[in-house]
Amino acid sequence: MLKQYLLSPGPTAVPERVLLRMAHPMIHHRTPQFSAIFAETKRMLEQVIQTKNDALILASSGSGAMEAAVTNLCSPGDTIIYVNGGKFGERWGKIAAKYGVNTVEIKVEWGQAVEISAVEAALDAHPEAKGVFLQASETSTATEHPIREVARLTAARKGCVTVVDAITALGVIDMPMDDWGLDVVISGSQKAFMLPPGLAMIALSDKAWALTESAACPRFYFDLATERKNQQAGKDTTAWTPAVALILGLNEVLKMIFEEGLDNLHARHALLAKATRAAVAALGMKPVSSSPATSATGAFVPDGVDGGAFVKYLRDIMGVTFAGGQDHLKGKIIRIAHLGYYDVFDICIAISAIEIALNRFGHPVEMGRGVAAAQTVLAERFPAQE
Amino acid sequence: MLKQYLLSPGPTAVPERVLLRMAHPMIHHRTPQFSAIFAETKRMLEQVIQTKNDALILASSGSGAMEAAVTNLCSPGDTIIYVNGGKFGERWGKIAAKYGVNTVEIKVEWGQAVEISAVEAALDAHPEAKGVFLQASETSTATEHPIREVARLTAARKGCVTVVDAITALGVIDMPMDDWGLDVVISGSQKAFMLPPGLAMIALSDKAWALTESAACPRFYFDLATERKNQQAGKDTTAWTPAVALILGLNEVLKMIFEEGLDNLHARHALLAKATRAAVAALGMKPVSSSPATSATGAFVPDGVDGGAFVKYLRDIMGVTFAGGQDHLKGKIIRIAHLGYYDVFDICIAISAIEIALNRFGHPVEMGRGVAAAQTVLAERFPAQE
Repeated sequence: MLKQYLLSPGPTAVPERVLLRMAHPMIHHRTPQFSAIFAETKRMLEQVIQTKNDALILASSGSGAMEAAVTNLCSPGDTIIYVNGGKFGERWGKIAAKYGVNTVEIKVEWGQAVEISAVEAALDAHPEAKGVFLQASETSTATEHPIREVARLTAARKGCVTVVDAITALGVIDMPMDDWGLDVVISGSQKAFMLPPGLAMIALSDKAWALTESAACPRFYFDLATERKNQQAGKDTTAWTPAVALILGLNEVLKMIFEEGLDNLHARHALLAKATRAAVAALGMKPVSSSPATSATGAFVPDGVDGGAFVKYLRDIMGVTFAGGQDHLKGKIIRIAHLGYYDVFDICIAISAIEIALNRFGHPVEMGRGVAAAQTVLAERFPAQE
Repeated sequence: MLKQYLLSPGPTAVPERVLLRMAHPMIHHRTPQFSAIFAETKRMLEQVIQTKNDALILASSGSGAMEAAVTNLCSPGDTIIYVNGGKFGERWGKIAAKYGVNTVEIKVEWGQAVEISAVEAALDAHPEAKGVFLQASETSTATEHPIREVARLTAARKGCVTVVDAITALGVIDMPMDDWGLDVVISGSQKAFMLPPGLAMIALSDKAWALTESAACPRFYFDLATERKNQQAGKDTTAWTPAVALILGLNEVLKMIFEEGLDNLHARHALLAKATRAAVAALGMKPVSSSPATSATGAFVPDGVDGGAFVKYLRDIMGVTFAGGQDHLKGKIIRIAHLGYYDVFDICIAISAIEIALNRFGHPVEMGRGVAAAQTVLAERFPAQE
């Protein structure tokens, strides 16, 4: 017997309530029944994104919505600026290259936030740029970028938008799209939305929608104007066959989110992140990021411990799945997720497991030391009793 | 959002695999399909009980099988000896009284194991006694009784049997029925069998079956000879409508148990019990039992902490359900279960929660102290790496 705990930054655990909703008998998508659920779901999603514009729901992973952002905003020969501080930042460049879109890369050391002055310099050097493409939270390094400050820079520039991959940020941190002037916000189902993979979400500002009118990159499945025509209120359907069960699940998830309340949702994530950072520090593990994400904590495994074997041992022998590192961080770090259906005791499990595993790997750490640091923070979640 | 953790000594958590099996479409019970499953389930159950005799499966809670033991072995006016060291021991007396069966009570202080000399004295004083009725594990005090030694005493006595309520012992500790000469073994679905409540199991030795022939207590639903006629190999059915979904679930549970292996099953429970005891001791909490059960650990809450409010707070505010105390232990103890679908991290959750709650109740304990004590034991479950 080996109980399984999924503590990776996506897919994340799906609540029982959502699993049961998705297990309901299949319904047809071209029906008033589905449209009613779809419309309600979309309205709630727009409240999470905090936008008056449409939030479109796509049957794809988040990468599909990233491609949609490029192809719907740009023409071949256009220029975009993108922040590359990890695997996901890098992806903007790969997508653009496929469509003949020129790129200005702002290379950022993995684990660091982009310097706002670097973005400003790139914008000044490339007034023709259609936008700045970046991650709110770069999952590969568990690092947050200053999206609000970037949006302030593009707001003043005509025809230039801020495109935010918020796949591990939306539903984790407060990032009001309209208030902050974010032009494109992208997310996916398998992160804070506590669903299996298979849905992407994307919302565009009026400024971004204006760019779509002249954008000449070829697109069919990911043509957002076509989706908007179908998904708009009153139409309440999708251009192509929607992922019906996942949309039922998203409906349930959004109800859970509003039962908790957006403020509580964000506060819970902030507390779990704070506790995890405290635990990792107590264990003497060096953080990967100087701008640590609220969605996950990255930490270097101690010298002498093979990070690859360590993560594999935790998963296969102990039943606790974390993410390791990618590219040059492969074998060097562990990423402890805390987004979505996570609460206090998931952190206790994560840190207990890491402490036991470190000892089993011949790297003695004091048992309970990290757990205690986490508990001290986590106790804030519960009221003191008289 | 409040994640729920069920750490009470029954019902216990049901594994997903078992939930899914029970969610299969209903099948009819008077069919070869059901009989095949029933026969396989019963055979596996007999291997867990470690008996060559029939293990009968009843649609009732464990208390039904306790009543069946009395009514199928005794006549009105007969005498039985029973061990009363808690709520469940007490129940033997209540059942016997309803049927006009005389009782010799061996009163044991709550939290203590019965003295074998007391059982011997009762048997000597009452050579007419049909049997000694006791719990392998008295759940209300989380205490184990020396059933093997009791069985040795009755083995030498003609027409006198040992009747064991093993509801929180079977599937937890190694208690080979035939080898140890246990005459009746009773269990229930909602404990180590990891199922919802609704099934009882009962097996009788040849000596016990012989007593059923002359036992004149009235019985209909719980007539074990009728059940045996129906449930025997080749017939593979039940006298009355069986709890079909629970039997499908039991089939799955028993497959899980044999995939783990009986030795591993018992070793896992022993390790979890050892870790929990170590944690409780590290927190300075006094154990309830001087013969602590492998299924659950009982501990007194510290002076000044209202045990009732404490258990309620853990359940309603923190989402972690433990059992409190009953009768004169009400409000004084907490019982931490570790039977069934429990593993290493359930103990970490339990102890983390108790540490946080104690602090929140104004009883400062060092965070992580109990967790560390548990982890040190639990680490044994995982191999050291080179």
